[in-house]
Amino acid sequence: MQEMYTIGIDLGGTKIEAAAITLSGEIIHSHSILTKVTAGYPGVKAQLVEIIHTITSLLPANSLLGIGIGVPGQVEAKTGDVIFAPNLQWHQVPLLQDLEEACNSPIFVLNDLRAITVGEWLFGAGKNSSNLFCMFIGTGIGGGMICEGRLMQGSENSFGEVGHTPVNFKGPICTCGNHGCLEAYAGGWAIARNAKERIQADPSKGKAILKHCSRVEDINATHVFQAYREGDPLASEVVEEAIEALIAGCIGVVNLTNPEKLILGGGVLNGFQGFFQRIKRGIEKGALKVAVRSLEIVPAALGKHSGVIGAAAMVIHNQKRGNVGNETTYKL
Amino acid sequence: MQEMYTIGIDLGGTKIEAAAITLSGEIIHSHSILTKVTAGYPGVKAQLVEIIHTITSLLPANSLLGIGIGVPGQVEAKTGDVIFAPNLQWHQVPLLQDLEEACNSPIFVLNDLRAITVGEWLFGAGKNSSNLFCMFIGTGIGGGMICEGRLMQGSENSFGEVGHTPVNFKGPICTCGNHGCLEAYAGGWAIARNAKERIQADPSKGKAILKHCSRVEDINATHVFQAYREGDPLASEVVEEAIEALIAGCIGVVNLTNPEKLILGGGVLNGFQGFFQRIKRGIEKGALKVAVRSLEIVPAALGKHSGVIGAAAMVIHNQKRGNVGNETTYKL
Repeated sequence: MQEMYTIGIDLGGTKIEAAAITLSGEIIHSHSILTKVTAGYPGVKAQLVEIIHTITSLLPANSLLGIGIGVPGQVEAKTGDVIFAPNLQWHQVPLLQDLEEACNSPIFVLNDLRAITVGEWLFGAGKNSSNLFCMFIGTGIGGGMICEGRLMQGSENSFGEVGHTPVNFKGPICTCGNHGCLEAYAGGWAIARNAKERIQADPSKGKAILKHCSRVEDINATHVFQAYREGDPLASEVVEEAIEALIAGCIGVVNLTNPEKLILGGGVLNGFQGFFQRIKRGIEKGALKVAVRSLEIVPAALGKHSGVIGAAAMVIHNQKRGNVGNETTYKL
Repeated sequence: MQEMYTIGIDLGGTKIEAAAITLSGEIIHSHSILTKVTAGYPGVKAQLVEIIHTITSLLPANSLLGIGIGVPGQVEAKTGDVIFAPNLQWHQVPLLQDLEEACNSPIFVLNDLRAITVGEWLFGAGKNSSNLFCMFIGTGIGGGMICEGRLMQGSENSFGEVGHTPVNFKGPICTCGNHGCLEAYAGGWAIARNAKERIQADPSKGKAILKHCSRVEDINATHVFQAYREGDPLASEVVEEAIEALIAGCIGVVNLTNPEKLILGGGVLNGFQGFFQRIKRGIEKGALKVAVRSLEIVPAALGKHSGVIGAAAMVIHNQKRGNVGNETTYKL
């Protein structure tokens, strides 16, 4: 029998990564280009069509099962329309329909973190588990959940938006307008902001961070982590608070949803060694006994290609389920 | 065809309520006795057997489909063993097995709030909805979730334990040992405790509450609500904080799990008029747009018999699914 492939695409605000992937999750070709966000939806759509053709041309004829696209935004489950993707400046675009017409192959469009969740489940840290929560801590914080062998979607396809869990209702304002969200403490943008605000309040304190970055307005989370590793008190305050917030956010998730695996990934988590272990211990100490009794807390396993593998995994999962169309449906 | 019935039992630390219920959720007989907690597991088990026999004797022969028992504690899904029920002082008791031997009828044992969730779903505020979260705010806070037409169980059957979501990781200690849980602000016990602590810190302030209750150690949530309605500043501080915490907790739930209905019930919610509306408005203002776009926030509908109806609903739900045994299983 002919070997079949899928194409996974990780569509980001900076770059588009595409890869041809085997049914067991291995990458056989990959290709990456910078995203022309300023070219608007038509421009980026043309880039997607081109990269799909490039990858398809490398595959044997009739070997393509389908194409999965992970989008940094909100996707309408049934239609595959992208409702809102701030980093791409997209509002309500019919991505699935447009690509299906241009590419003559089944297309699946879904949120990027939900895609990575499916990838970790089928091919990564969540293999052989049917109840898991994936949390990704990068510039923003998001996630996805598998319950009893199903990708949770919720009523508007946003199940897993863990970044906007209030972990301190008296806390600082978040980009969403609410107070004390997990992301407002532990997202990369917040770590940077919270350091900047402290320096602006007391400029005598910022020196260790400003060694790595000359101007206060240019501080990012990496600079804060560098100063933290050097023992800087201001950076410590910001990072320790981020860790406490992450522990609280994870405790909320495991107490509420009782997964058997909590998979943690993302750039902030990799910001320094020991971060993961601190969070793991904090959860194990603070969560309900019933919630941690059989809980495994593990780092994400797919690494930097998780986006393309996840998008491809979604195609494989949907095909296995015999689903027609974009939506992941399950028998009741 | 003969009409069939189920028996629903709400087993509480104070009383045991049992009712015979039609397949459309109507109560036809009900009976209630005080729980002899001090008689230990054998004593309470004997009470259960007796009340089951009393209700069964009122039904036509061969008309009993099964008996559902909602337990205030943690239940092992497969076996129906009660792992831990603090108000009953039970640790690891084989309730399902013992009752099945004594009653010669299919028995279903589950957590009381998960039972009420199924009841609200089949017969109450959640009818015709397949994605809903129920939250009950009483002495403690708990809940349950239906996703895509399925009762969520989690890996240890504790999906829905929303009371121990941290809403302020810098907040007061909770009975679970962690800090700033939702329940540590808004559970009835916490409303009482938080008022007591404030009075103990400044005895000049407690007068309005102490009008309703002579000694500080006897203050309960009802006294605090009475003083709140009279405009007492200390009671206001405690209750306003509870409302803010509840809004934050609900925002966390709807952002994370994206239900189409959030059903709120329980004694604290009914503590004063306007409480429900305040919480509803707070959620609608503070949650993510995607999470509230199609969200309905509604009060629980089953009222004081929700426990027995819920326990019976679980029997009906399991029978409809053709399940054998205690566990609610679904096809993948």
